[in-house]
Amino acid sequence: MAVPPSARPRRLLPLFLGLFQGALLLFFALFVTYDEPSEQAEDTNLVANQVYSTFPFFQDIQVMLVVGLGLLLTFLPRYGFSALTHNFLLLNFSMQWALVLQGLLHHFHHGQIHLDLHKLLVSEFAAVTVLISVGAILGRASPCQLLLMATCEIPAYLASEWVIVTCLGVLDVGGTITIHIFSCYFGLGVSKALFRATQQPLHSKETPTPRSDLMSLVGTLILWVFWPSFVAVLCQPGDSQHRAILNTLLAMSASAITTMVASSLLERDGKLSPGHLQNGSLAGGVAIGVVADMAVPPAAALALGSLSAVVCVLGFRFLTPLLGRKLTLHDQCGIHNLHGLPGLLGAAASVVAVLVASKDTSGSHSSQLSPAGGNASEAAEGQWEGRGAGGQALCQAAGLAVAVGASLLAGLLTGAALRLPCLARPPERLCFDDSLYFKIQDQAESPGPDSGAEEGALALKEQI
Amino acid sequence: MAVPPSARPRRLLPLFLGLFQGALLLFFALFVTYDEPSEQAEDTNLVANQVYSTFPFFQDIQVMLVVGLGLLLTFLPRYGFSALTHNFLLLNFSMQWALVLQGLLHHFHHGQIHLDLHKLLVSEFAAVTVLISVGAILGRASPCQLLLMATCEIPAYLASEWVIVTCLGVLDVGGTITIHIFSCYFGLGVSKALFRATQQPLHSKETPTPRSDLMSLVGTLILWVFWPSFVAVLCQPGDSQHRAILNTLLAMSASAITTMVASSLLERDGKLSPGHLQNGSLAGGVAIGVVADMAVPPAAALALGSLSAVVCVLGFRFLTPLLGRKLTLHDQCGIHNLHGLPGLLGAAASVVAVLVASKDTSGSHSSQLSPAGGNASEAAEGQWEGRGAGGQALCQAAGLAVAVGASLLAGLLTGAALRLPCLARPPERLCFDDSLYFKIQDQAESPGPDSGAEEGALALKEQI
Amino acid sequence: MAVPPSARPRRLLPLFLGLFQGALLLFFALFVTYDEPSEQAEDTNLVANQVYSTFPFFQDIQVMLVVGLGLLLTFLPRYGFSALTHNFLLLNFSMQWALVLQGLLHHFHHGQIHLDLHKLLVSEFAAVTVLISVGAILGRASPCQLLLMATCEIPAYLASEWVIVTCLGVLDVGGTITIHIFSCYFGLGVSKALFRATQQPLHSKETPTPRSDLMSLVGTLILWVFWPSFVAVLCQPGDSQHRAILNTLLAMSASAITTMVASSLLERDGKLSPGHLQNGSLAGGVAIGVVADMAVPPAAALALGSLSAVVCVLGFRFLTPLLGRKLTLHDQCGIHNLHGLPGLLGAAASVVAVLVASKDTSGSHSSQLSPAGGNASEAAEGQWEGRGAGGQALCQAAGLAVAVGASLLAGLLTGAALRLPCLARPPERLCFDDSLYFKIQDQAESPGPDSGAEEGALALKEQI
Repeated sequence: MAVPPSARPRRLLPLFLGLFQGALLLFFALFVTYDEPSEQAEDTNLVANQVYSTFPFFQDIQVMLVVGLGLLLTFLPRYGFSALTHNFLLLNFSMQWALVLQGLLHHFHHGQIHLDLHKLLVSEFAAVTVLISVGAILGRASPCQLLLMATCEIPAYLASEWVIVTCLGVLDVGGTITIHIFSCYFGLGVSKALFRATQQPLHSKETPTPRSDLMSLVGTLILWVFWPSFVAVLCQPGDSQHRAILNTLLAMSASAITTMVASSLLERDGKLSPGHLQNGSLAGGVAIGVVADMAVPPAAALALGSLSAVVCVLGFRFLTPLLGRKLTLHDQCGIHNLHGLPGLLGAAASVVAVLVASKDTSGSHSSQLSPAGGNASEAAEGQWEGRGAGGQALCQAAGLAVAVGASLLAGLLTGAALRLPCLARPPERLCFDDSLYFKIQDQAESPGPDSGAEEGALALKEQI
Repeated sequence: MAVPPSARPRRLLPLFLGLFQGALLLFFALFVTYDEPSEQAEDTNLVANQVYSTFPFFQDIQVMLVVGLGLLLTFLPRYGFSALTHNFLLLNFSMQWALVLQGLLHHFHHGQIHLDLHKLLVSEFAAVTVLISVGAILGRASPCQLLLMATCEIPAYLASEWVIVTCLGVLDVGGTITIHIFSCYFGLGVSKALFRATQQPLHSKETPTPRSDLMSLVGTLILWVFWPSFVAVLCQPGDSQHRAILNTLLAMSASAITTMVASSLLERDGKLSPGHLQNGSLAGGVAIGVVADMAVPPAAALALGSLSAVVCVLGFRFLTPLLGRKLTLHDQCGIHNLHGLPGLLGAAASVVAVLVASKDTSGSHSSQLSPAGGNASEAAEGQWEGRGAGGQALCQAAGLAVAVGASLLAGLLTGAALRLPCLARPPERLCFDDSLYFKIQDQAESPGPDSGAEEGALALKEQI
Repeated sequence: MAVPPSARPRRLLPLFLGLFQGALLLFFALFVTYDEPSEQAEDTNLVANQVYSTFPFFQDIQVMLVVGLGLLLTFLPRYGFSALTHNFLLLNFSMQWALVLQGLLHHFHHGQIHLDLHKLLVSEFAAVTVLISVGAILGRASPCQLLLMATCEIPAYLASEWVIVTCLGVLDVGGTITIHIFSCYFGLGVSKALFRATQQPLHSKETPTPRSDLMSLVGTLILWVFWPSFVAVLCQPGDSQHRAILNTLLAMSASAITTMVASSLLERDGKLSPGHLQNGSLAGGVAIGVVADMAVPPAAALALGSLSAVVCVLGFRFLTPLLGRKLTLHDQCGIHNLHGLPGLLGAAASVVAVLVASKDTSGSHSSQLSPAGGNASEAAEGQWEGRGAGGQALCQAAGLAVAVGASLLAGLLTGAALRLPCLARPPERLCFDDSLYFKIQDQAESPGPDSGAEEGALALKEQI
């Protein structure tokens, strides 16, 4: 068997990753330390309490990203190993990269960056944007392309997040605008610039099998279960966090049921589409993020969850094919339906929530609308008290505009960069195939007399 | 391809679910609010502590129900997607329905229901009964039938739980009597009334494959790991909860080992049966629930775990076939062996524990037998102190009788209702088949030259 | 079908397990109780806090061992059910056995052993050694052999751990030396003595399929996510635990990326090997354990993680084949690469860390090097303060020597015992096959006309 055509660029991956890891090591050696150990017993208790209150949420989020999201992407039957591994690689790479950039931007005092669990968590949030954006080009991009994309997306995200949260004072505890909207349109921008006007034909290996659909659904369920932790982790402890958890639970429960209704109504024979279930059930979690800790009534959370499931399913059924035909916009995993449309809905809801809340509870709104303790939100809260409900509503809208605009622009530029020939996009016939990147058993390794009919058939098919 | 015969009833599912979700939304809009935000710092701390102490348990239970139980049901090789999805749908539907009913019954003050995490948790417990009962008729019932069943079971459960816990003052922190016994006999009642005297023949798609058995075992292991959270979540913090966790861990560990002994001894060639492992390992968790927070010694927890594993395995080997032959009672997943028999054992153990505890520790029993803070248990504790050990033992027995009687009656009635022709039970040849409800790749979607031998064979087989 | 040749010894399994469970029950009935219930409110709060601070970690570790490690071992395509079940059985058996032995050794006061969550946790740590050691002989040993191995390993571990931690005062909060090194060389000793100079030929059922590799990777990811809980659970709350979590996160993140670099560079065509990913990503967690709570800078954690991934991958590529050829040493899962080599690296790092820490921070080292609250570590800390950095470094080295020496010796003796004919090692042709131990559907159960081509092919292949 001859060396495949894309062997040379594969050397790029270890080179790039190795250099990155070495540079990171150097950076950490020079600039990063842990917090000084606390000298007093009270401080120890304080740290212990912080660990106990944040760490379980952090672990939940790790499960979501590493296991849940990874499994969700295994719906491509011959690309499961790649999907899991690339997701895992990109999470680690992006988190470390975000740690460096965030350290330089926000936490560089007296020549040192003090690392703690909260900073890791915030970096993990930055990494989420990459994991979402990848969905637009999954299976048709090489790992080098994905890494370059992550390299560009993290600084773009940090800049956009800084403008939205710190400058504009947008309230967005669950990252609906800053994470979901941003990553969706960034991913679509990349896809557009990468594939340009070429229609991506349906690949024979794209169709899920019953088994890959099942694994993917398990991933959805894991994400569904732990989503409240993702939304509530940065909330202020107490009522605010409690409300964020409840709102998220209600919205996701409504999403789950409404997805079945919508999917069933849309198909001629009433059969449910696995793809709708895998995505629609999570749509409520995307939309609720921005209003989760606000004083929205439970019914609003339910309504938002239902509505986002409907737009997600409608998006899969009508909008994605339309965008593919009209704009030759390729969206492999349908991230626009899961993150884009419900995100827009959530942003709209936050405008309404800000306006309504101030009418209902003028005089005491600060205690009910107080946002997360995370992203410079004390500043945000201060501004919000000063500027009144109308101003805050305007800011929410402005934040949305910034997120969409910045992400599209950055995505298009990044996508153009991904066309660099040295990054070697896999040829069409090798797309969606683990055996391009992994020493997975295939025709190369003798399907001896003892290996099953299944493997034999697989080997036959893989003759490339 | 002609429209399948059951296309018309499929319209019923979205209709029913859609109406339900709309009605729920209306109900929430009119009557449900969150707790008033706490004004003072101490209250905030209190709420925060409640969130930190309850939420991890809640998440554990969500994992159990959504992922663990869902995977456990995927032992039917061509019905895994349906099992996961229907489990997920029923959990959400039942939880919302229980929230409404419980709100109306218990928490309706001044025209408002105040929602908090604890109420969601209690509703989730109600939903568990539905998920268990479904096991009796899994694969042979349509989603509409399952939803009607959930609609009937939740009020029956709430009534029965009210009588058992509030009126009789039964101590049952882990839901052995109120949840497991009730749901088991309810499910058997439904099965009996639904299938009547028709023997259900062994369906060719019923036999697990090695792969589906493996997935199902993973589900068992997830349930096994998180079971202590399920039992202990409603316990009083402190010793009581600590003891409940330890007792559950010991009982489940003994179950795991004893299941292997029993299964191995029962088979002629000493091979273990996957079904025994998947169920027997959990039997200890079912039985221990009712005594988990009582002052039972560790050895008793071990013994109860071992014993329940033995009765569970014996039930699979002898009782289920016997019930099938003599009473034409169909029990697809063997819920009687996992929930019925160990539940009866646990109920008996609770009678003994109450009698023994009062002898051992007269004078201080109240601190040792104090039950959960959940289901009106303060009332229960008060009664127990007043009525003495003999009276409490009688109450435990009476609670068991109420649970069995009420569930059988309600189950039989519900099963009769499930025979309504509009609910369209799937025809025999389409049972245990995902492709009836889901657009799972099958013969309909062109198994082109590129699709594997496996899918081709599958497509051939599915010619219906 | 004739009774298979190994039917007789199979009776040994239930006999042995049944007797063990009975004896354990007796032991518990005579000697084990729970802690006295606390009388005062403050005590109740204390217990509650302990439960809330330990229990989530404990659950994380349970998930790792039962689900994560179990799935990791399912890379053998026809042995997944056995791997999961034997792992589960050995965990329960070893934990109970360790509970008895530890109770007798350490906690036997006034004729009673007081059980609590912490003791269960420590016993679970002991059980981990068995689960790791099994990796050396996975698939080629009968369950009876594995149980005998567990029976011998637990006391050997407890003795070695007592010498290392209590006598020598070695600091090893994450069990790098006491658990990983010990279990690795114990397993290799068993393998050597069991297989002696017989080369184990490559079995046709040993080669992973794409699907079994995927399941195994999911196991790796679960282990990866929860590893920080494993390392940090026994740390002192506060800074020490916080630092252990951060160090572990950094080390594992570096491992994940470096594994891809190393694996990609080592293969001619740049393709990644699934086995490298499944193991190398975890190597950092093994190595960091011993220094996790020390005052190592973040860069050191990154470097240690990277380095251990490199040695792990190099071990798989060069050392394991070499050991197989030169020493006829069989290491089925490559435990030497995942636990041995990174463990040695970690031990060396701990020597350096002790020496460096004392120079950097003389005067305040005690607060920064304070080890876990677990294994008699207060004593260790006292010794360390008294003996100075050089002495402590010597102790770390001595602890390593004890772990390697004791485990090899005990392993060789145990391996010799496993050759007892009554334990009936499976014949070569039945190795790596679930159908030897489980009633898994195979050729025996009529692959009727309705069962798929896949099962048919499988049945044909299984003709033995």
